[in-house]
Amino acid sequence: MQTTLHGTKKLITIDTDGPVTIIGEKINPTGQKKMASALLEKNFDYIRELATRQVAYGADILDVNVGVPGLDEESALAEVAQIVSGLVDIPICLDSPNPAALARAIDVIPGKPLINSVSGEEKKLSDILPIVKAREAAVIGLAMDDDGIPATAEGRLKVAEKIIERATRLGIPQEDVIIDPLVLTVGADSKAAELTLATIRLIREQLGVNINLGASNVSFGLPERLTVNQAFLALSIGAGASCVISDPMKLANIVRASDLLLGRDEYAIRYIRYFRSLPKDPPPS
Amino acid sequence: MQTTLHGTKKLITIDTDGPVTIIGEKINPTGQKKMASALLEKNFDYIRELATRQVAYGADILDVNVGVPGLDEESALAEVAQIVSGLVDIPICLDSPNPAALARAIDVIPGKPLINSVSGEEKKLSDILPIVKAREAAVIGLAMDDDGIPATAEGRLKVAEKIIERATRLGIPQEDVIIDPLVLTVGADSKAAELTLATIRLIREQLGVNINLGASNVSFGLPERLTVNQAFLALSIGAGASCVISDPMKLANIVRASDLLLGRDEYAIRYIRYFRSLPKDPPPS
Repeated sequence: MQTTLHGTKKLITIDTDGPVTIIGEKINPTGQKKMASALLEKNFDYIRELATRQVAYGADILDVNVGVPGLDEESALAEVAQIVSGLVDIPICLDSPNPAALARAIDVIPGKPLINSVSGEEKKLSDILPIVKAREAAVIGLAMDDDGIPATAEGRLKVAEKIIERATRLGIPQEDVIIDPLVLTVGADSKAAELTLATIRLIREQLGVNINLGASNVSFGLPERLTVNQAFLALSIGAGASCVISDPMKLANIVRASDLLLGRDEYAIRYIRYFRSLPKDPPPS
Repeated sequence: MQTTLHGTKKLITIDTDGPVTIIGEKINPTGQKKMASALLEKNFDYIRELATRQVAYGADILDVNVGVPGLDEESALAEVAQIVSGLVDIPICLDSPNPAALARAIDVIPGKPLINSVSGEEKKLSDILPIVKAREAAVIGLAMDDDGIPATAEGRLKVAEKIIERATRLGIPQEDVIIDPLVLTVGADSKAAELTLATIRLIREQLGVNINLGASNVSFGLPERLTVNQAFLALSIGAGASCVISDPMKLANIVRASDLLLGRDEYAIRYIRYFRSLPKDPPPS
């Protein structure tokens, strides 16, 4: 199944049969003081630099999240999304729990964007899906509902089915709903990642839709988090994830390697070209 | 299924249900000039250092290969195996295509070692299996025969069945045969790794035996080989490999992370303890 998005110029296809699409996650102040300050001080140069750097390191889509306490999210999301989409030619992923902020930002960016996110929660479904439909955008659906995050793969599949059912009832095509099976930190629950891998396999088999995953929650609180994130991405892609939201400077290489090993990169052309194209300067910490 | 080995003191269990066993591969002169010189000059300090360092970084078993042109392998394998097994308490994996060298070395080391390797080739089967049986050792069986490496998972499964059949006929228990499904470099054949992953799944399902994999052939000739090796190990472990022959200084961390993510490490105790226990000095290049 294919989800197509586009930015000012570039068409991006998220494809269940890979290669994997990378959503660059760095324009997000959560736990990032420098980004939080940049947003509060309207230091857009820092944001521009992170946007172009993520593209240079292989991002296919850029996530834009401006959730800082004290910031007017409605105007800030539209402003930052407009700046970023004016700078890069790839699609934007608008990342906010605030329907008013999403509705305003979606009007100022070009192309067909992605909305991050809806869930099986009733209020989310009724607030967010109409915004997705009005713009004919695509949306990430988180496998949780008003009862929280189900503790079984079957429970998360049911939520995914509900989100898709509600979306298609509104006229949003099934291929424009990307399911995020969610992963909790494996340091707190040693079965958390295994459950997510089982959920990926089940959703791929039962629904056939594109599956997105975040690559950093899983390692929270552990030493050498990058290693856990790398292993998790390879395992998730092996299980059937077709889209990852992550830091391309740190993790695009393992994504490219996984595609190569799964037979989606003839003559290793994409893998080799990726390393040849990288900027020569080291990424910022 | 469990394969048990032991060194001077330590019992090691290779278990299809994990956690994954690591065979340290560094005592091997193939493509390693420094090790080749150390062997030719009988610089055993270098070999001792690499033995203890691999154990410190998580090796459960140490491979010993002394294949240098110009060296008398028969006496060298026995000499080096004796030195290494006198220094560490874990089992040794004797690595040689030479039956005479294996037969001599196996007599000077303690415990129950591993022999690397037999294959489906008739001469290998008739030369090597009796040595394994005489010592009640365990053996790695490569999925290739007199016709070469089969191009399909089913073909490699057939060779694995043949090796196990021949071993059990001699009285070697099935659990003492560990199958290596083999992997060719993905730079030359973009389907090579995918085929190995399919072979792992098929052999696990059909035979249930332990599966060993080498982690470095796959990336030959590619840039950023470590990234490809990391992704390949995670994918292989996800598919069912229970033993890897690799460089623990570079790859034990991704093996530990994969075990953690696959639910084999309650409270992440093994993962956290691993990083806490590492030597503070950087590994040698």
